[in-house]
Amino acid sequence: MKVRIGMGLLLCCALPLQAAEFVLVDTAQGLDVGNWKVSSDSLGIKSKIPFSIEKKRLHGGRQEGVDVIVVDNGTLQMTLVPTRGMGIYEVRGGDLRLGWESPVKEIVNPAFIDLESRGGLGWLDGFNEMLVRCGYEWTGHPGVDDDGRLKSLHGRVQNTPASVVRVTVDETPPYAIHVRGRVDEKTFKFSDLSTWTGVTLVPGEAAFTVEDKLTNQADYDNEYQIIYHGNFGAPLLEEGARISAPVKQISPFNDYARKGLDSWQTYLGPTKGFDEMVFNIVPYSDAKGNTLAVLENRAGNAGVAVDFNVKQLPVLTLWKNTDTLQQGYVTGIEPGTSYAYSTKYQRPLGLVPTIKAGESKHFTLRYQLLRDKGEVQAALDRVKAVQGSQPTELRRDPLVQLPH
Amino acid sequence: MKVRIGMGLLLCCALPLQAAEFVLVDTAQGLDVGNWKVSSDSLGIKSKIPFSIEKKRLHGGRQEGVDVIVVDNGTLQMTLVPTRGMGIYEVRGGDLRLGWESPVKEIVNPAFIDLESRGGLGWLDGFNEMLVRCGYEWTGHPGVDDDGRLKSLHGRVQNTPASVVRVTVDETPPYAIHVRGRVDEKTFKFSDLSTWTGVTLVPGEAAFTVEDKLTNQADYDNEYQIIYHGNFGAPLLEEGARISAPVKQISPFNDYARKGLDSWQTYLGPTKGFDEMVFNIVPYSDAKGNTLAVLENRAGNAGVAVDFNVKQLPVLTLWKNTDTLQQGYVTGIEPGTSYAYSTKYQRPLGLVPTIKAGESKHFTLRYQLLRDKGEVQAALDRVKAVQGSQPTELRRDPLVQLPH
Amino acid sequence: MKVRIGMGLLLCCALPLQAAEFVLVDTAQGLDVGNWKVSSDSLGIKSKIPFSIEKKRLHGGRQEGVDVIVVDNGTLQMTLVPTRGMGIYEVRGGDLRLGWESPVKEIVNPAFIDLESRGGLGWLDGFNEMLVRCGYEWTGHPGVDDDGRLKSLHGRVQNTPASVVRVTVDETPPYAIHVRGRVDEKTFKFSDLSTWTGVTLVPGEAAFTVEDKLTNQADYDNEYQIIYHGNFGAPLLEEGARISAPVKQISPFNDYARKGLDSWQTYLGPTKGFDEMVFNIVPYSDAKGNTLAVLENRAGNAGVAVDFNVKQLPVLTLWKNTDTLQQGYVTGIEPGTSYAYSTKYQRPLGLVPTIKAGESKHFTLRYQLLRDKGEVQAALDRVKAVQGSQPTELRRDPLVQLPH
Repeated sequence: MKVRIGMGLLLCCALPLQAAEFVLVDTAQGLDVGNWKVSSDSLGIKSKIPFSIEKKRLHGGRQEGVDVIVVDNGTLQMTLVPTRGMGIYEVRGGDLRLGWESPVKEIVNPAFIDLESRGGLGWLDGFNEMLVRCGYEWTGHPGVDDDGRLKSLHGRVQNTPASVVRVTVDETPPYAIHVRGRVDEKTFKFSDLSTWTGVTLVPGEAAFTVEDKLTNQADYDNEYQIIYHGNFGAPLLEEGARISAPVKQISPFNDYARKGLDSWQTYLGPTKGFDEMVFNIVPYSDAKGNTLAVLENRAGNAGVAVDFNVKQLPVLTLWKNTDTLQQGYVTGIEPGTSYAYSTKYQRPLGLVPTIKAGESKHFTLRYQLLRDKGEVQAALDRVKAVQGSQPTELRRDPLVQLPH
Repeated sequence: MKVRIGMGLLLCCALPLQAAEFVLVDTAQGLDVGNWKVSSDSLGIKSKIPFSIEKKRLHGGRQEGVDVIVVDNGTLQMTLVPTRGMGIYEVRGGDLRLGWESPVKEIVNPAFIDLESRGGLGWLDGFNEMLVRCGYEWTGHPGVDDDGRLKSLHGRVQNTPASVVRVTVDETPPYAIHVRGRVDEKTFKFSDLSTWTGVTLVPGEAAFTVEDKLTNQADYDNEYQIIYHGNFGAPLLEEGARISAPVKQISPFNDYARKGLDSWQTYLGPTKGFDEMVFNIVPYSDAKGNTLAVLENRAGNAGVAVDFNVKQLPVLTLWKNTDTLQQGYVTGIEPGTSYAYSTKYQRPLGLVPTIKAGESKHFTLRYQLLRDKGEVQAALDRVKAVQGSQPTELRRDPLVQLPH
Repeated sequence: MKVRIGMGLLLCCALPLQAAEFVLVDTAQGLDVGNWKVSSDSLGIKSKIPFSIEKKRLHGGRQEGVDVIVVDNGTLQMTLVPTRGMGIYEVRGGDLRLGWESPVKEIVNPAFIDLESRGGLGWLDGFNEMLVRCGYEWTGHPGVDDDGRLKSLHGRVQNTPASVVRVTVDETPPYAIHVRGRVDEKTFKFSDLSTWTGVTLVPGEAAFTVEDKLTNQADYDNEYQIIYHGNFGAPLLEEGARISAPVKQISPFNDYARKGLDSWQTYLGPTKGFDEMVFNIVPYSDAKGNTLAVLENRAGNAGVAVDFNVKQLPVLTLWKNTDTLQQGYVTGIEPGTSYAYSTKYQRPLGLVPTIKAGESKHFTLRYQLLRDKGEVQAALDRVKAVQGSQPTELRRDPLVQLPH
């Protein structure tokens, strides 16, 4: 492996050469390479499908000083945000786009966000990405926990700049591109979590894999929670779009969502006054725990499949925010350890798991862009295969009776 | 119009050439031009009065990374602060200065401010400008609103960096200089406000105009509030200085201000232990809604006139903070939609107006430096003309009985 | 004196030349010199012991944009942090190190810290330095004060970037190096404190002096508090390490610390589940008020002596955080005006002193690395000399009965 810092300084090499690694950010060295770019050409890689990876700094407004990394694998253009916990802002592929149009247009520097504002809703000041990690100390709606302290909406990791960012390109076919970032949640006496996030794209493929490894570096067990808050708007989301998953139980998050329970699989068009309906899903999985959810457009010729594993992420939140376009017309497909209730409501549900001292937890998700009827149908067939003849319980009552 | 990015890249041009526009910041492009300067000379403009516009970045302390724009129109030197919501730090003109000496000396980067601190008084950590916009989501003292959430002092816009900054210079006499900045208040589910602030100076004139356009980009009506918190200290403010305005009703903000009601028009010198007295004023206006307030020094040979329109800004807060010099000896002349009570107290007064979905609200103010007895007298005559023979009600009781 | 800005611009000079001064940061000029270095060589100083002073900017994670100054006096390498209130991150000297290993590894930019988070414990997100100033507006545990406002843990000064940073090198033997930084705590209506911090190192000496001058620039008296939170981990701290001080009274901070009272002078090794024990000490002093505390390792051949003056800092907090290494194995030797209770508990104890309008308070501390048995013994002898035959009261009950 060749390890290079920044623009290509060769640090070491070993035979056989199998990957080129670039360190773009490393707090241990106080290093940030600044604007930076490599491509299959510049690397001398003979990929049939040219690719490139670029890091650049944004300016202006509340995005001042934010770094993004744009990976173009020849088929997809993915924008990652090291400054925001290695979140994925968007993924473009041909006419399709994974992502959505939030009223929040800038990619907001956490320096300008106060998570405690609006009673713990400050996270909403920067919410506009396709993939937001909601964790890992806690997740869910803000609430005063049993210790008397406010836990703000969806935790802190997405508003934490990555401490290390590395790009690795395999030097053997299919020349996979890996962008890894370490995001630390460290607070003396409270938290010593370190997460190696990882995204892998293979040149030419209309899919990518997220592989994260959360480690509790403390000498004490601790609670943790994570929701992989994947968000999809137009063009996939539209009136008549559908969501499919192998469902063991689905229930409304709150009283308002009760009336949407029977039609949970279909989406409305942009609907003024709709606000949001949220559903809590216990998915079925195959013998290995693998399962998926599929969003398809009305014509059934475009969509996205989200694969995950219930041993890692046992529950699925479905967020249907089919309000107006300007308000943020979007649906969330959100595998997680937990639902979106505040922590004190999830603990009795058994959805605030423990990570032991020194333990690591792995989370693997795969997002596949479905670009024609065949690909959509293949994904739906996978859903059916997992569901089989097993029944779906439509539970009418929310799991938690929230105070009014 | 010629549109140039930064140091002068010509993007397009049309005949006849009428203005040169420079884009200094644009988040849509991720652009910030950095340090930058133009002058009438460098633009090849044959103005009899040379002028210049300069953008520069400040460093050190809590002002690290703050950008200021200094406009010198030959008569006034105005310092604008894009990083702080396009606020105006100060305006100097000969021996006079619009502005004041706050104990807060640095122009503070919002990254270092937590508006929620001290029970919602964090805004005070950065308060030192001549013109502060207090809005637009809400204004006034901090308080827990009816929704159970704390609204921090005077809203968030002044602590929001501008997303777009443009400088335009008319290429025909009188070669007016326009500095426009767009400041966005965007929070998913809560706010989708975008304000184009604008300041215009004409070379040689001892006056400037503020023209702001607030747009609710949401598909829903929302509340809004704004106070144009204009602040003036020495040398205009001194013992015996006077404030004049056509007043329909004036009342003390709270019990403490009751005893200052009768002498509301005159100022004390720096007075230890005075703290502040605040008065709520309903101004008279002319048939078009135009009105003004005039601050003059003791000799009546220097002052400032603040013109505004009651159709846009129906009420006027007068803030007399004639405490010691070091404490911040200053008076606020503050046209607004609202007084300085917290939101829940203003709603019953009808002072929390609505901005409809897609609606824009315009706010135009003019600040004129009065440099001799003649200019002062002319402004006072305008006050008298609006007041005419209409009576002034001195209301003894505050509009709101605040809890002790 | 020669005064130079940044890389050596000569501003003025006077005969005889006695010191070279460099202005590295000055908010009044909007100045930051960026990366910068001088050495005895580059200064043409004929010191037998070469020395250097370097300023550099860190990148990545939550340390993005943090500046550090590394002073190498030939014997010690000290890392100062202007961005964090001129705190001292660590001091290395041969095999020894003053400092500790916090789970928080980065030197965190205050822009990424919200002191109000976790109920006022946000300070813990950045706590990892050898010397943290806890003040000056208030100190101690978070708590809602009598005014109804939350005072966050240990005040704000350590999370305030320095407004002015100056390096001075004496040009006559022993060529002392002075790093001075002004840190302002300024909030309109609340605080107008300005502190000139100062650190002096003499080339070749294994000791340094902290000389701070706090000035209340307001026209009003105000409360103030300060704890010099000096923190020491391995290798000095280990099982069997000892703390010595001339003690008039020592009492447990809370009920948990009661059981550690009798063994207050000795340390456990890293102990899972220990958490922390805190003791409140009233030290004896000599006729001038001078006193000290000495930490020594088990073998008694290495340690640190902390000298202070009880007229400035009348009480001493001893913090024994002998939990596991990963949790942050550390002891705090913390001379202060106050203990670590929240403000409302300290006021009845008389430990919330007043600083008058315009008054300055001086705080001088000296930290000496003890590198052999002789140096340790000499320091212990100084402790004994102050203690003499005076008794030590072991008070069993905490001074404050905290609510459960």
